[in-house]
Amino acid sequence: MKELTLVKVGGKIVENPNNLKQLLADFSEIEGYKVLVHGGGRSATALAEQLDIETQMVNGRRITDRNMLQIVTMVYGGLINKNIVTGLQALGVNALGLTGADLNYMRSEKRPVKEVDYGFVGDVKEVNGAILADLIQKGITPVLAPLTHDKKGNLLNTNADTIAGEASKALAEFFDVTLVFCFEKKGVLADENDENSVIKHINPDSFQKLVAEGIISGGMIPKIENSFDALKAGVKAVVITRADLIKEKNLGTTILEE
Amino acid sequence: MKELTLVKVGGKIVENPNNLKQLLADFSEIEGYKVLVHGGGRSATALAEQLDIETQMVNGRRITDRNMLQIVTMVYGGLINKNIVTGLQALGVNALGLTGADLNYMRSEKRPVKEVDYGFVGDVKEVNGAILADLIQKGITPVLAPLTHDKKGNLLNTNADTIAGEASKALAEFFDVTLVFCFEKKGVLADENDENSVIKHINPDSFQKLVAEGIISGGMIPKIENSFDALKAGVKAVVITRADLIKEKNLGTTILEE
Repeated sequence: MKELTLVKVGGKIVENPNNLKQLLADFSEIEGYKVLVHGGGRSATALAEQLDIETQMVNGRRITDRNMLQIVTMVYGGLINKNIVTGLQALGVNALGLTGADLNYMRSEKRPVKEVDYGFVGDVKEVNGAILADLIQKGITPVLAPLTHDKKGNLLNTNADTIAGEASKALAEFFDVTLVFCFEKKGVLADENDENSVIKHINPDSFQKLVAEGIISGGMIPKIENSFDALKAGVKAVVITRADLIKEKNLGTTILEE
Repeated sequence: MKELTLVKVGGKIVENPNNLKQLLADFSEIEGYKVLVHGGGRSATALAEQLDIETQMVNGRRITDRNMLQIVTMVYGGLINKNIVTGLQALGVNALGLTGADLNYMRSEKRPVKEVDYGFVGDVKEVNGAILADLIQKGITPVLAPLTHDKKGNLLNTNADTIAGEASKALAEFFDVTLVFCFEKKGVLADENDENSVIKHINPDSFQKLVAEGIISGGMIPKIENSFDALKAGVKAVVITRADLIKEKNLGTTILEE
């Protein structure tokens, strides 16, 4: 199978024009097939503020009421997605922006209300890897916004890490997929103050120890748990690294299945 | 060649939830291949107002400065486009939302500054009909937002009637294209107060007379001029009708080449 690199970048990169420019230049130089997944939460929060719409977060997750759904549809599906697509086209990358509703490539269901009502937030139920693979094999580079739909007429807000993991799993049937999560550090650090302390490999055993020791904590825990899931589902490699290092994947932290 | 219907709907339809629902239901029932092109100017103006950004119009055309470009990218490329795509998917239509940057299907150049600087407004230079035709032949229904790009990294605001005309011309190489412009009346009326006075056919000769008599005026003039251009470029038929009549094309005004 041919190689495919799926890069997930968060808001800090895509919302800063200079960082975005550098990221797109680096991304355009990745060889082989590729997919880009983006976030954009900070821009959504900023637009909501300008419109006097309150942003409510519970456990670091956004409550998406009807007004907030409009905001994220505009920001994720429009502003950020189309700026990335336009930037990549200028670099000769034949990009195509997609939400889960486009081509019905990712269907979700509204998250059931338990302790918290997250509103219009979708849990992914079905990914059409074949329709993405068909585009990719034609030389098209999908740019995936963190929005899905329920195929009943509702767009749903969906975490960009989740989109990246689910898309990677679905594409693993067609390609040798490397999933690259970008964040602000070179990799998972043994000492958070030392950028040279990158932990080169993490497997389920060492992960347990690192969590117990408090070296891995917070949002990194679900990211790595999702990485193990992706590897079990056939993704070839998962790398956590800094956005400016996506071309040199061996500099970051590689998550191993065993 | 197989038949393709390209429907252009303006903001008044797509910005009213009930009208939009009806339109999408009617559109989904059109047989054969189809494409939808939408506007959205009123929503853009409304969002700009909420954000204290002034909307400037010259000769009925929007001045698109950098702030307004962000607004139309959010509203046309995000909010309206993705709501239509999601609504069509719920009706079983495999829709795909596109700006001209996506797949580089429509390239434009920033309009030269003469008497007026329209800002980030694009005049269409190149349409990739083959890439659209390939999607359509796979059963995909493109939903085209009124945005193009210059392939140098800039999105450009482009009139939805123009998008509809240019896409129709490019697709005429692959399909028997009928272009349907929706507006608020049943067709071009001989008496503007009588919905039963639809002029069934207009050709270049009768058009000249109707303009001279003042029966056709304002924004209808460029719409019909563009229709003649489309017919000359191989589009099979152009129909001007009311949105709720798109299934019964023979009730509107048909523009004829001769």
